[in-house]
Amino acid sequence: MADVYIALVHHPVYNKNREVIASALTTVDLHDLARVAATYGLAGFFVVTPLEDQLKLAREMVEHWTKGWGLDYNPNRGQALRLVRLARDLVEARAVVAAETGAEPLTAATSAADGEARMAFSQVAGLLKDERPLLIVFGTAWGLTEEVLAACDITIEAVRGPTEYNHLSVRSAAGIVLDRLLGRG
Amino acid sequence: MADVYIALVHHPVYNKNREVIASALTTVDLHDLARVAATYGLAGFFVVTPLEDQLKLAREMVEHWTKGWGLDYNPNRGQALRLVRLARDLVEARAVVAAETGAEPLTAATSAADGEARMAFSQVAGLLKDERPLLIVFGTAWGLTEEVLAACDITIEAVRGPTEYNHLSVRSAAGIVLDRLLGRG
Repeated sequence: MADVYIALVHHPVYNKNREVIASALTTVDLHDLARVAATYGLAGFFVVTPLEDQLKLAREMVEHWTKGWGLDYNPNRGQALRLVRLARDLVEARAVVAAETGAEPLTAATSAADGEARMAFSQVAGLLKDERPLLIVFGTAWGLTEEVLAACDITIEAVRGPTEYNHLSVRSAAGIVLDRLLGRG
Repeated sequence: MADVYIALVHHPVYNKNREVIASALTTVDLHDLARVAATYGLAGFFVVTPLEDQLKLAREMVEHWTKGWGLDYNPNRGQALRLVRLARDLVEARAVVAAETGAEPLTAATSAADGEARMAFSQVAGLLKDERPLLIVFGTAWGLTEEVLAACDITIEAVRGPTEYNHLSVRSAAGIVLDRLLGRG
């Protein structure tokens, strides 16, 4: 069974006018995605931003819950946030995965938009039977840029319900994606 | 196909010491669960709190995104938040569902804890083939009280991944629960 990692990218992502931005880190995203990562047995969760002050903020938050009084207050948060790793970009995240597992990960982008060459969840689940680690990449704000999608090995099909509405939060979407891949026992 | 509603309960819920409290409304919960509700074609999303100032806050937030300049800024939020209904307790929420659909809903609690008489997701999905509306109830803070679970008709099995960790946020859990019931086409 492949080791699975997720990454939450804060740059480069689009804003609502499709300009490329660095989004601000939000603590609720870090908590929620760390808790998803712990629930589904992931090997790690990368917080990806090139901004030094944001990396510092993420580091302090993780330390608060894994070493500070936060650990005593709520040990479940610490258990999840221990999975957090910091990276300046996806190249660095991939290098960390390679160092930890001994193999280059297959990098899978997620996108709410339909597009060419999307891989079905059932196919992605099949890839997990291989040895090769899988790094699933989520975007903040209005989503990963075309450049990021192109740099990933595959793009997973959008999460859709029975409607045309496809504007889930990354907190809900990450849970659903991992559940579709790893939650059926 | 049954009409499906969700409710997010702010009282009565447990705090970390298992005392019964009224939790504060958080806007990220309202946005995220409204977006889940819109994605999965739900008939409505009840924000349940007995606190008048909190009901006022929820009403103002919904109006901002469905009528105020928020609608112009991001119409997708308005489309989701139009599904929000306010209720002081689950009795009131059930009465609104009955008035809207002409039938008393089956009320299904959710809980992260294992316990007696939990209903499997496949069985709950089977109930959706009936005419009777389904009201799925989520708790904030440390979860719904035993009193609420006992007052509901059924309790759905906990969302579990392949690990023992079961501390998902309600934002992730609600997405996964609806996806398991309605997201498989």
